[in-house]
Amino acid sequence: MSVSSPVDTNSKNLLPHDDHSCEKFFTPSSRYGINTLHTSSVVEQSEKVEDENYVWMKMQEEAKVDVIVEPILSSYYYVSILSQKTLETALANHLAVKLSSVSLPSTTLSDLFVRILESDKEIMYAMKNDLKAVNERDPACISHVHCFLNFKGFLACQAHRVAHNLWSNGRKILAVMIQNRVSEVFGVDIHPGAKIGSGILLDHATGIVVGETAVIGNDVSILHGVTLGGTGKAHGDRHPKIGDGVLIGAGTCILGNIKIGDGAKIGAGSVVIKEVPPRTTVVGNPAKLIGGKNNPIKLDKIPSHTMDHVAHISEFYDYVI
Amino acid sequence: MSVSSPVDTNSKNLLPHDDHSCEKFFTPSSRYGINTLHTSSVVEQSEKVEDENYVWMKMQEEAKVDVIVEPILSSYYYVSILSQKTLETALANHLAVKLSSVSLPSTTLSDLFVRILESDKEIMYAMKNDLKAVNERDPACISHVHCFLNFKGFLACQAHRVAHNLWSNGRKILAVMIQNRVSEVFGVDIHPGAKIGSGILLDHATGIVVGETAVIGNDVSILHGVTLGGTGKAHGDRHPKIGDGVLIGAGTCILGNIKIGDGAKIGAGSVVIKEVPPRTTVVGNPAKLIGGKNNPIKLDKIPSHTMDHVAHISEFYDYVI
Amino acid sequence: MSVSSPVDTNSKNLLPHDDHSCEKFFTPSSRYGINTLHTSSVVEQSEKVEDENYVWMKMQEEAKVDVIVEPILSSYYYVSILSQKTLETALANHLAVKLSSVSLPSTTLSDLFVRILESDKEIMYAMKNDLKAVNERDPACISHVHCFLNFKGFLACQAHRVAHNLWSNGRKILAVMIQNRVSEVFGVDIHPGAKIGSGILLDHATGIVVGETAVIGNDVSILHGVTLGGTGKAHGDRHPKIGDGVLIGAGTCILGNIKIGDGAKIGAGSVVIKEVPPRTTVVGNPAKLIGGKNNPIKLDKIPSHTMDHVAHISEFYDYVI
Repeated sequence: MSVSSPVDTNSKNLLPHDDHSCEKFFTPSSRYGINTLHTSSVVEQSEKVEDENYVWMKMQEEAKVDVIVEPILSSYYYVSILSQKTLETALANHLAVKLSSVSLPSTTLSDLFVRILESDKEIMYAMKNDLKAVNERDPACISHVHCFLNFKGFLACQAHRVAHNLWSNGRKILAVMIQNRVSEVFGVDIHPGAKIGSGILLDHATGIVVGETAVIGNDVSILHGVTLGGTGKAHGDRHPKIGDGVLIGAGTCILGNIKIGDGAKIGAGSVVIKEVPPRTTVVGNPAKLIGGKNNPIKLDKIPSHTMDHVAHISEFYDYVI
Repeated sequence: MSVSSPVDTNSKNLLPHDDHSCEKFFTPSSRYGINTLHTSSVVEQSEKVEDENYVWMKMQEEAKVDVIVEPILSSYYYVSILSQKTLETALANHLAVKLSSVSLPSTTLSDLFVRILESDKEIMYAMKNDLKAVNERDPACISHVHCFLNFKGFLACQAHRVAHNLWSNGRKILAVMIQNRVSEVFGVDIHPGAKIGSGILLDHATGIVVGETAVIGNDVSILHGVTLGGTGKAHGDRHPKIGDGVLIGAGTCILGNIKIGDGAKIGAGSVVIKEVPPRTTVVGNPAKLIGGKNNPIKLDKIPSHTMDHVAHISEFYDYVI
Repeated sequence: MSVSSPVDTNSKNLLPHDDHSCEKFFTPSSRYGINTLHTSSVVEQSEKVEDENYVWMKMQEEAKVDVIVEPILSSYYYVSILSQKTLETALANHLAVKLSSVSLPSTTLSDLFVRILESDKEIMYAMKNDLKAVNERDPACISHVHCFLNFKGFLACQAHRVAHNLWSNGRKILAVMIQNRVSEVFGVDIHPGAKIGSGILLDHATGIVVGETAVIGNDVSILHGVTLGGTGKAHGDRHPKIGDGVLIGAGTCILGNIKIGDGAKIGAGSVVIKEVPPRTTVVGNPAKLIGGKNNPIKLDKIPSHTMDHVAHISEFYDYVI
């Protein structure tokens, strides 16, 4: 089963955003969600449709307000949002315009993208959750339209979902071409083979590198300059596996086929080459467990949601008065 | 008062470049200059005009020599420099060409930029000081024209000044759109809310990230890959405050609403999550004070001017014979 | 003698890829190969021609297969590969298209590049070795055409070779303009004065910065986010010298005019400001010798070939069970 399958939305409902308690998040079924995700039920499917329409309607409303405030953007908003029939065509068009070049016209890319987005419902489901994630976790995000039009981490992630579809269907040449255009245009280099869940925030995003056999769970927040890298030149499973709810700080390198447990937090600038237990915090170069190996401090909130980069780390690093 | 206001140019005259003594730089009035800057006098205003004209005349002379040496560039130099009436129109046009896209034509952007640059004199004042800063501190800089046409750190900084003007005047949608084009084109992601002083060098610049409530003082040098980041997802004042004369080495993360004192030096690859006293050097992950907490070594030169990344650090790091 | 001169290909033949033994690699003549490289013999020259034709013929075959699999790419492949007479014109055209802008038309750049590539045989020799290096060391590389069309590290390196030719021939204005377009388009900032050997892999490449007086030997692998930086603002020799066969992990900063010995390995995220002996491993911030100063562990394989980022480091970093 693909990692981009929708997760049980019930388990998400157990996570009130006021609280961010981890207790119910870390149920046995969601631990290492990267392995235990299950397909969505009929009820969830209908919720999905409503949700998707809600997002698209909201985006169109926001766009209408924006062009009243800034008529200078009318043409841009018309082409990108207001003239589009569906969220699928809007996304296909916007990605195509961004990734096109003299060699790859936007019409060619747009046709290709829209076919994939209309046939692969999991991409649209995940994309909607990504939009929500950016809105909820990034205080710099003004609106859905703001994220959709501008956030290169969001756009790079959606382009990757398309490239992953192509890769999984044997169209490797196109997949790697998209990967490389995304790397040129957004500075984000995700191998099309990588499996990425939903509810993903790639914040700022410049310099992110994700290798071929990496797996990223659901509700993960990754800052710019993060590497999920391999080691050695052998083929085969050689990249990190990131659990659900993980927060990875800016400039961190995680190398090799190692597990980062659900709800773990990796401090900025860390170098991680060994497994990290669930709900713990590691930091430093080399990364060390906050609280020590035998009794590491356990996080009681989901770090990818709180986006708290320094809790526990701050006390640990008592180096300046 | 805005941080981009001109500083007292007299205090700059007290800093002979042969000497770089800090004694007069760190006067009470300039300490945490981010809070104590005062508006320029009439004398300074007239000096400003002369200075600006000097820079513009010098750039045109350099451009004329360049096209004699490389006729291949005649058309490019004509459009960018030689046909332009003022430094304002030249900058507006050059930024517009760089940041334009299918969706945002360069004429639209150029009209917008020139209106802002002609009305906001502080931007042009700061821009001129940035040009000087690059010329004085970066040995790889050949000429003013070289910097003006090519240095993406310089161009990203000027685009930010325009975006900050828009942001401060309530035109947030345009401001964040410029922010994101700068992030795509130059790999530099500065939130338009951030306040940045003058005499700024963003060297190499790829991967720089500056958050919404960050404040950067005057005469600061920041290398590529530096993050001035927030922590948590709450709105409000959450990013670093960088004093005057600070040097921040490549790849460093400074996180949270903490002060980096005037004239401090942060070594490359550091992670800083606590206040750094003025004129001290911190380095490492986690960053540590060189000389120790109780008796840190005090710098006697302005690190952003000397660009000396290893003095004191080198002795401290005696790890290889 | 230029560092981009061909190395003795016999010494390469002594390195069976199954083995990667260092014994014959680290002969006295190849130690600090950056200083001791010698020009190629007549025999090697004829080998070069055959090799180059082999690569070009192979690329055309691959391209023909690719367009059968993906007819959508026919036009792109025709212009980039299939209609090109030689590898020189193909490279000149492809780089020109990537680096062109409104200000710098691709035809102007293409004419300039093809003249340099057809007159400077060392560039084509080095480029061919770079293609081989990517194919041999990067498991994500599908084919020669895949690398040639897409890998921004590869393309940035070739653009640098052209810019270095211009710089060495006194055409500094054009050289720095190419440098800065490469920095904008690929996020790779290599000063045109830097000397770079052959068989170079710049993997992922975003954020790489190489200073003016840096020297990189042969068969070197450098990951994204690596800085070979200077210190201070004085002109003169101020950047690192990287020996043959070195592997530099992601996000590492090497600062100042220091030597990194042949066959050394620098772990990801390291900060290196002192000399590193040949065949040793350093890691951390500040970087430390694995095994200690007096008895560092010596590598018996060439790290740039094995691309093993964690051997020895993993044991050293026993911080999580």
